[in-house]
Amino acid sequence: MAVYQTTVSAPVNIACIKYWGKRDTKLILPTNSSLSVTLDQDHLRSTTTSRADPSFDKDRLWLNGKEESIEAGGRLSTCIVELKRLRAAVEAQNSAAPKLSTFPVYIASRNNFPTAAGLASSASGFAALVASLAALYELPATPSQLSVIARQGSGSACRSLFGGFVAWEMGSAPDGSDSLAIEVAPREHWPDIHALICVVSDDKKGTSSTSGMQRTVETSALLQHRIAQVVPARMDAIKDAILRRDFPAFARITMQDSNQFHAVALDTDPPIFYLNDVSRAIIAVITEYNRAAGAIKAAYTYDAGPNAVIYTPKENVKEIVELLLRYFPQSQPFPDPFGLDVNNEGKLPAGFNEKVAKAFPVASVKGFIHTRVGDGPRKLDASEALLGSDGLPTFLA
Amino acid sequence: MAVYQTTVSAPVNIACIKYWGKRDTKLILPTNSSLSVTLDQDHLRSTTTSRADPSFDKDRLWLNGKEESIEAGGRLSTCIVELKRLRAAVEAQNSAAPKLSTFPVYIASRNNFPTAAGLASSASGFAALVASLAALYELPATPSQLSVIARQGSGSACRSLFGGFVAWEMGSAPDGSDSLAIEVAPREHWPDIHALICVVSDDKKGTSSTSGMQRTVETSALLQHRIAQVVPARMDAIKDAILRRDFPAFARITMQDSNQFHAVALDTDPPIFYLNDVSRAIIAVITEYNRAAGAIKAAYTYDAGPNAVIYTPKENVKEIVELLLRYFPQSQPFPDPFGLDVNNEGKLPAGFNEKVAKAFPVASVKGFIHTRVGDGPRKLDASEALLGSDGLPTFLA
Repeated sequence: MAVYQTTVSAPVNIACIKYWGKRDTKLILPTNSSLSVTLDQDHLRSTTTSRADPSFDKDRLWLNGKEESIEAGGRLSTCIVELKRLRAAVEAQNSAAPKLSTFPVYIASRNNFPTAAGLASSASGFAALVASLAALYELPATPSQLSVIARQGSGSACRSLFGGFVAWEMGSAPDGSDSLAIEVAPREHWPDIHALICVVSDDKKGTSSTSGMQRTVETSALLQHRIAQVVPARMDAIKDAILRRDFPAFARITMQDSNQFHAVALDTDPPIFYLNDVSRAIIAVITEYNRAAGAIKAAYTYDAGPNAVIYTPKENVKEIVELLLRYFPQSQPFPDPFGLDVNNEGKLPAGFNEKVAKAFPVASVKGFIHTRVGDGPRKLDASEALLGSDGLPTFLA
Repeated sequence: MAVYQTTVSAPVNIACIKYWGKRDTKLILPTNSSLSVTLDQDHLRSTTTSRADPSFDKDRLWLNGKEESIEAGGRLSTCIVELKRLRAAVEAQNSAAPKLSTFPVYIASRNNFPTAAGLASSASGFAALVASLAALYELPATPSQLSVIARQGSGSACRSLFGGFVAWEMGSAPDGSDSLAIEVAPREHWPDIHALICVVSDDKKGTSSTSGMQRTVETSALLQHRIAQVVPARMDAIKDAILRRDFPAFARITMQDSNQFHAVALDTDPPIFYLNDVSRAIIAVITEYNRAAGAIKAAYTYDAGPNAVIYTPKENVKEIVELLLRYFPQSQPFPDPFGLDVNNEGKLPAGFNEKVAKAFPVASVKGFIHTRVGDGPRKLDASEALLGSDGLPTFLA
């Protein structure tokens, strides 16, 4: 008897132009377009195995070894139902196609980065879910078409269906059919872009992005101006910077938009703060790094939490890591997948004004992750499957 | 021989609608109107003695016992020259008036609060300077007319020429003649408004407001929207709230505008941060205090630094102090000029969710100052003069 099973991995993406606000909370239609860099799955990924089997009792899903309920009308269910509908259309056109759309599915998904890293896993997770079912169902759908489905799982997931530099065009159709991801440039266009994630300790649980962004939509007096005036111009400008591989322009817009996202969060009533004193100090250090260099050599960006992601051309990574280690000492040597010879004592670049921040205690930054721009979802070997021959997860928490 | 000398004190003011941005940096014309509460001079004040004497060699000024140079064309000089000009007009109308406008002046000024308290002293300082020379010169000028002069010393100084609730109307005349302070309501209209200043420790020197606000004018994509759309509506609404003594409305606008000021500071390139983790925690505590009470009983506001000022009706002060002492313990008992019987161990109000912030170490908040809405500049007795019989300061640093 045939086994219908596929395993896929999908990447994390970190936005340069931030998504913050929905115009339709059910369809997850955003109030503005956004743009991100896809990070390399060699380092950070969600892996998902999907299996369709007529003997299964119902659709089931395990996330990191723990079963999650699939509620009717919920985000998981919406994605699965939509993909089954597309499969049914395939079957309607080709009577030889097995009737997978009628079989329940078991889905196991896992992130290779700990929840404690504070990286949003919903983007890579929903992208892997959608890509895995689309592969299982052999859907004749483009990544952009699949992104419309992933978007309904988690907005920013739509951007994880492409590698490289990805725009989420907000669209205007009421049904959301034109609110989708497009590739601005593949990673091969600008493979030199590296990312350094600084995992920042935080005492308090921040406001969730889902509830936070709607509070901003309802109460910020500045958000509408950002949506109508600022973001459209920045989207054009950053796409142009990417196409020209103009790092200073790319970096400047990235930093400005991170700051503006946090500004509208602060302009919310009551205000939302995601940046803490460590986040602020990283901003001060990168700002001074660029000033001392006389050129914009690095860009910081922050999502809905205190972690920094620093984009920089590969040649600057060593210098930046050593600079950050000076302010944010670590108990362990810097773990580098690229084999950089890092001075773990830290080091200041020439002309750098040390006084822009104080040195923080060990573990104020819990760790660093060095990665780079990456590719889109990958279909993996059966050997990497997360479901065993019995159709159940090989790993349970 | 006659001695021409007067001593005046002037109050501190703390804005509810923030001044941030100049449209004319020389005349100090703001990009938006602002509104403040004048604090009680019984607690916080600048005192200035001015003396005109034909035997003096030149104009001189001592601030907190240290001589400051009066540079031609500088802010101090602009105020003194302008006041002498008005005095000359008086003399031109009345030939019996002594020719004080032709005498050099000695000016001694002192703040009764330490610089380390982090309270801007330029507002009360320039207001005291202008009020003191105006009294010395017996100028037939209204506080609003004098505010035009004080504004050229330090923008927000214009608001310290009135007690109570004071608007600085931005005006539109190119010469600044209609950019002046007006009294929205005297303190007697709403004497119940108290203020609790939380002096917050900070590791780093923040960006000066003079340079910071111009960077915001030049680089923030959100400021123009704030100026054109948000502030005019808020000015109307908060004046109305004051006239109706509607504390919840007053408080909500105050908090929103503090947040928006810090939002446009963050939207500046590079970003400006004045709030630190302690400031953020005070915001979280006041937000939860209002939520738990089911009513807005207190408002926080922050100027260009980490210190909080909390406005609240007098009846809530004890409860708020005890709440803050729970999170920000002090090594000394709470010093209260109003004789509140404060529990120095701290105490949570009913229904308050303790988890909204962590307890900070002693001295994270360096101290509290409890004051209230106050009156405008006061003419003081000769016994309080800061210049001795020889015309020189009685105190030198």
